[in-house]
Amino acid sequence: MHILVIGAAGMVGRKVVERLARDGGLAGRAVALVTLHDVVEAAPPAGAPFTVRALASDLSAPGEAARLVATRPDLIVHLAAIVSGEAEADFEKGYRINLDGTRFLFDAIRAVADGYRPRLVFTSSIAVFGAPYPEPIPDEFHLTPLTSYGTQKAIGELLLADYTRRGVFDGVGLRLPTICVRPGSPNKAASGFFSNIIREPLAGLEAVLPVPESVRHWHASPRSAVGFILHAATMDTGVIGPRRSLSMPGVSVTVAEQIAALAHVAGPGVVARIRREPDPAIERMVEGWPRAFEAKRARELGFTAEASFEEIIRAHVEDELGGRIAA
Amino acid sequence: MHILVIGAAGMVGRKVVERLARDGGLAGRAVALVTLHDVVEAAPPAGAPFTVRALASDLSAPGEAARLVATRPDLIVHLAAIVSGEAEADFEKGYRINLDGTRFLFDAIRAVADGYRPRLVFTSSIAVFGAPYPEPIPDEFHLTPLTSYGTQKAIGELLLADYTRRGVFDGVGLRLPTICVRPGSPNKAASGFFSNIIREPLAGLEAVLPVPESVRHWHASPRSAVGFILHAATMDTGVIGPRRSLSMPGVSVTVAEQIAALAHVAGPGVVARIRREPDPAIERMVEGWPRAFEAKRARELGFTAEASFEEIIRAHVEDELGGRIAA
Repeated sequence: MHILVIGAAGMVGRKVVERLARDGGLAGRAVALVTLHDVVEAAPPAGAPFTVRALASDLSAPGEAARLVATRPDLIVHLAAIVSGEAEADFEKGYRINLDGTRFLFDAIRAVADGYRPRLVFTSSIAVFGAPYPEPIPDEFHLTPLTSYGTQKAIGELLLADYTRRGVFDGVGLRLPTICVRPGSPNKAASGFFSNIIREPLAGLEAVLPVPESVRHWHASPRSAVGFILHAATMDTGVIGPRRSLSMPGVSVTVAEQIAALAHVAGPGVVARIRREPDPAIERMVEGWPRAFEAKRARELGFTAEASFEEIIRAHVEDELGGRIAA
Repeated sequence: MHILVIGAAGMVGRKVVERLARDGGLAGRAVALVTLHDVVEAAPPAGAPFTVRALASDLSAPGEAARLVATRPDLIVHLAAIVSGEAEADFEKGYRINLDGTRFLFDAIRAVADGYRPRLVFTSSIAVFGAPYPEPIPDEFHLTPLTSYGTQKAIGELLLADYTRRGVFDGVGLRLPTICVRPGSPNKAASGFFSNIIREPLAGLEAVLPVPESVRHWHASPRSAVGFILHAATMDTGVIGPRRSLSMPGVSVTVAEQIAALAHVAGPGVVARIRREPDPAIERMVEGWPRAFEAKRARELGFTAEASFEEIIRAHVEDELGGRIAA
């Protein structure tokens, strides 16, 4: 089979492709070709038993989407997006990539003739929800985005359902929890501290906590994110029905519970590297973020995440640190 | 003030403009100019105490939206849409007018500089909901459209909220109930029978009922639809919050209750003009349609509809038949 990953240079995209390379196939099906697409050329995974082709272009440029689907990939994983902060700062760019890029892709698939109908996995986000909401947020709660990014993802979900209903492709949308622990360096995302306060101390470095420990949020590991995507890529979609986007399972914890889990996994010396430095601007932003989901439909459809935040930390230590903690 | 009505040649648009002409202003504010826009030239209302300008063009054509807002209307009523059946039959046309046309309008407003920020009233539809749902449907139920038209209206709602949040305009979205009794000739809309079985018998003509009398649906009169729009045009929007689209109030009745109300208003001779002719295709479609809404937020915000179906019939007799029934 031929798999196209759009947004392949991002953290989740890279991990999806590494997992495919490691597994050597997808749910027992042999993979012949994986096309990696992003605005920059994505690095091919080590030791892949399939052909890897990397393309760099702007998905929202005329003809690009058509070029990507012309080779009729059997599975398309669409992860490409301008992230929340940038989509808020640059109105046009956010709409051009997150809305137009997605729609161009969907329309390009529609334009391929002869019964072409690939599986399409689209990553949405819990940013489609904005406060106030019940806790936990049930599967039937309305989408109330409070950012342009969340608006663009919610529109992507609507298009995904309609194009699926009309037989253009077989779409599954995944509302990803905040991915924690994100590997790499601390970034400027307002949500970055959720990962920073775990990753940096485990690496022997100091981390800044800008919010009170009572803040509660919804997390899943990068390993779970990859698992969600591969499950969506291979599951029986006949049982989903017309509501094609699903709130993914995750772990609802307070920052205090995150820190307690870190202490349990790595000891008090590691936890001592977290420095409190309140940032009222970040605190205000975080107040509007979802804290917990029922994720009933996703669990019933076989999506699984970690059962505890400790498990999320252990996944990070295994996958990113080779089991080693800087004690 | 200057009012722009887009979709002015449609039934609701025409009635909005007639009401403005009759009232001679909007909530005590003098109206100097009303611009009527549609794909065909809309007829100006009789005896309007303001200047009426009628423009015919395609809202989705390059430059048209910019031309419409260049004169900086204080209020924009955006009613233009390809209806459900046509948007389903013609995929491209539905997306071009209902999604692109709406977005072009919103972006054109955004492109007007110098603090321009008009009130914008957008008509959405209960077609943003698709079965199954709780009964009545609460205000916080997710949008689950099962048609391309419903999808396009739901996307319009999301854009309306985001552009309002970002200060482009001051938007209010109205999810209109099925408008009943629609004046004019029977049309091919699957929902047409809800009006036909009232309007035609009242005019001395036979009407066909294609569904069982147990079918329940959600209605408001054309008079109420105009009231919703003018209330949205003049209300204090500071109390709405970021969730800018509202399910409008209405009357939830079965077809049997519609017929009983008709008998009460017009007598058994009129009711005898309804002929049962089951149509399984229409019955299947109607099964997925909303039957009742809470409409709690809209009522709290001052939107009002009829209290009974009898009141809906009497509004039709007064507004369309000059009080006369063909007994």
